[in-house]
Amino acid sequence: LTFPQQRLGELGERALLQRIRDRIPAGDGVVVGVGDDAAAVELRGLAFVTADSLVEGVHFRRDLSPPRLLGRKALSVNLSDVAAMGGVSRYAIVSLCLPAGLEVAWVDSLFDGLLERAAEAGVSLVGGNLARAPETIVVDLTLLGEGSRPTLRSGARPGDVVAVTGSLGAAAEGVLLLGQGARLDEEGDLVATGIWTDSSADAVAACLRAQLDPRPPLALARAIAEHDLARAAIDLSDGLSSDLLEMCRRSAVAARVEGRAVPVCGAMASLEGARGGDSLARALHGGEDYELLLAVDPARFEELQELSFVWGVPITGIGEFFEGDPVVIVRDDAGEHPLAPHGHDHFPSPAGDGGGA
Amino acid sequence: LTFPQQRLGELGERALLQRIRDRIPAGDGVVVGVGDDAAAVELRGLAFVTADSLVEGVHFRRDLSPPRLLGRKALSVNLSDVAAMGGVSRYAIVSLCLPAGLEVAWVDSLFDGLLERAAEAGVSLVGGNLARAPETIVVDLTLLGEGSRPTLRSGARPGDVVAVTGSLGAAAEGVLLLGQGARLDEEGDLVATGIWTDSSADAVAACLRAQLDPRPPLALARAIAEHDLARAAIDLSDGLSSDLLEMCRRSAVAARVEGRAVPVCGAMASLEGARGGDSLARALHGGEDYELLLAVDPARFEELQELSFVWGVPITGIGEFFEGDPVVIVRDDAGEHPLAPHGHDHFPSPAGDGGGA
Repeated sequence: LTFPQQRLGELGERALLQRIRDRIPAGDGVVVGVGDDAAAVELRGLAFVTADSLVEGVHFRRDLSPPRLLGRKALSVNLSDVAAMGGVSRYAIVSLCLPAGLEVAWVDSLFDGLLERAAEAGVSLVGGNLARAPETIVVDLTLLGEGSRPTLRSGARPGDVVAVTGSLGAAAEGVLLLGQGARLDEEGDLVATGIWTDSSADAVAACLRAQLDPRPPLALARAIAEHDLARAAIDLSDGLSSDLLEMCRRSAVAARVEGRAVPVCGAMASLEGARGGDSLARALHGGEDYELLLAVDPARFEELQELSFVWGVPITGIGEFFEGDPVVIVRDDAGEHPLAPHGHDHFPSPAGDGGGA
Repeated sequence: LTFPQQRLGELGERALLQRIRDRIPAGDGVVVGVGDDAAAVELRGLAFVTADSLVEGVHFRRDLSPPRLLGRKALSVNLSDVAAMGGVSRYAIVSLCLPAGLEVAWVDSLFDGLLERAAEAGVSLVGGNLARAPETIVVDLTLLGEGSRPTLRSGARPGDVVAVTGSLGAAAEGVLLLGQGARLDEEGDLVATGIWTDSSADAVAACLRAQLDPRPPLALARAIAEHDLARAAIDLSDGLSSDLLEMCRRSAVAARVEGRAVPVCGAMASLEGARGGDSLARALHGGEDYELLLAVDPARFEELQELSFVWGVPITGIGEFFEGDPVVIVRDDAGEHPLAPHGHDHFPSPAGDGGGA
């Protein structure tokens, strides 16, 4: 018996909490789960911890993001952070700010996605918090992982290879496509191509999925950590231009990127090509790729490529680090020039100062 | 060189992050602190984890809560949860949603309070997240602790003593006083008594402090855990009537409370007396006391009283648990009657169903 149109204000906090708790399965290592003053869980080695929020009107729009995919993404963006540190994610804590007028069905779908993604990633939901929000939905997720040796942003050395996993630019293209009326449904299936014709449907769907349901390379990240193959790592959330500059600053090195080597997402490139856009620029500055940016000892790059093959995730060497003040240089048809970061800044300053996480 | 009136939108996210990071001291057990993809920390035994949010317009008002005290409270409400579980708090992660129009000075003061309270409690701030909010400030804090044996809500047995630490009702009185124009400044000093005369100043200040800067009995809670003196524990956040009923439900027992034994806060009682209010009702239903509610083996109650003396925190036996369906009975001048929960519900249902955490 369900009332999909029922509002939270009609259901009540206690009933909503019970509804959520009833859905959460027992988890490995969970001594005390959801529902007491705190959770108690087992962890081996060091505890890795990170938090990230999805704020309505800033990171998502209720009419563009199906809640099930939003639940998946809330977990995925944090999985990406723990993976970049070389940790294994184990437990999630979710804090929700929800307006009283929100449909109960929306919250149910959010948890569909959260719990499904948690199961995929071997993560247990162990706690959280519900608060009424005046208007804006906030999904704040804290993720707890474990590991033996954190991989920092600061470990890059001159001579190291600049490497990235997967391909870049699709998620940023997805934002544009949403603005042009393209839509996914709850299942992640394409239901509207917007201004695009059906012949572009596959490319449109791929870019929307990259934006609404990112899949960081968790298994590959784990293998890289186990083999200690990265001297430095950061997840690509603000965009390659921002995140590589951040790694350079932390490591006190410079980086040179070969424009031609950057793994531009093919789906994105086909759409950008059709509209006469610059697919390399989108790959360099787009953001929200949730791929890994790595600094790799050149003597071990071949090992890394073997792992890439084993796990079916491309790894591309796109340049190298060198001694110098922190800067990112791009070499393209126009020669070498410094790359200004265009990453996302939640509080843009007049100076146009870039991201940072 | 500071610009206290500067807005976040003028400063930029990167500069704000740097400003915050620069203030965070190195912490014991912190292998990687703020500023990488995730923090990495050392924990012994089980990991205890809890999260709680303070939402503007729901849990606080910007014009009533000095930000330094709000920062203290954001940590304190979580310290209370970990303490109730018998854990020792170690690390905090803070997620902020901040409107671009907010003064930088406000954020600085929030961190004054957070970092000060963290230092008092032996907690290190190790990570977090900043997001722009359309309008409403949200301070979401996740706290990580450690311990060997969690104390649950579900351990109360028939015959156990119902015990509470400290005194009750002051925090709820504080909400009323804020509505009547009484105010504390950033230092927690009384700057306005509102409708009250100076002769009530001490009582007014005490109740405001209980509301704006709660101090859960952390040292006592740790001693209780070390001596394994509580069969069950919950922190009093929703109000005794709600939280005791919650413990009864979890433990499948009933509880009888002696109205006369309830430790009514004297400051609150003096103000309620002056306005002809019901101080016992406020103590029973008020909420936000952040004291401990315990189920104690009667054979060990004396040991508990010794700890109470050692740590200078009153512990009062206010009744007993007995076999029966979950219900809280109060015995007062009018005889015995069931106590309906009046705790805080963020999504009040038409049926008036109570709290739950």
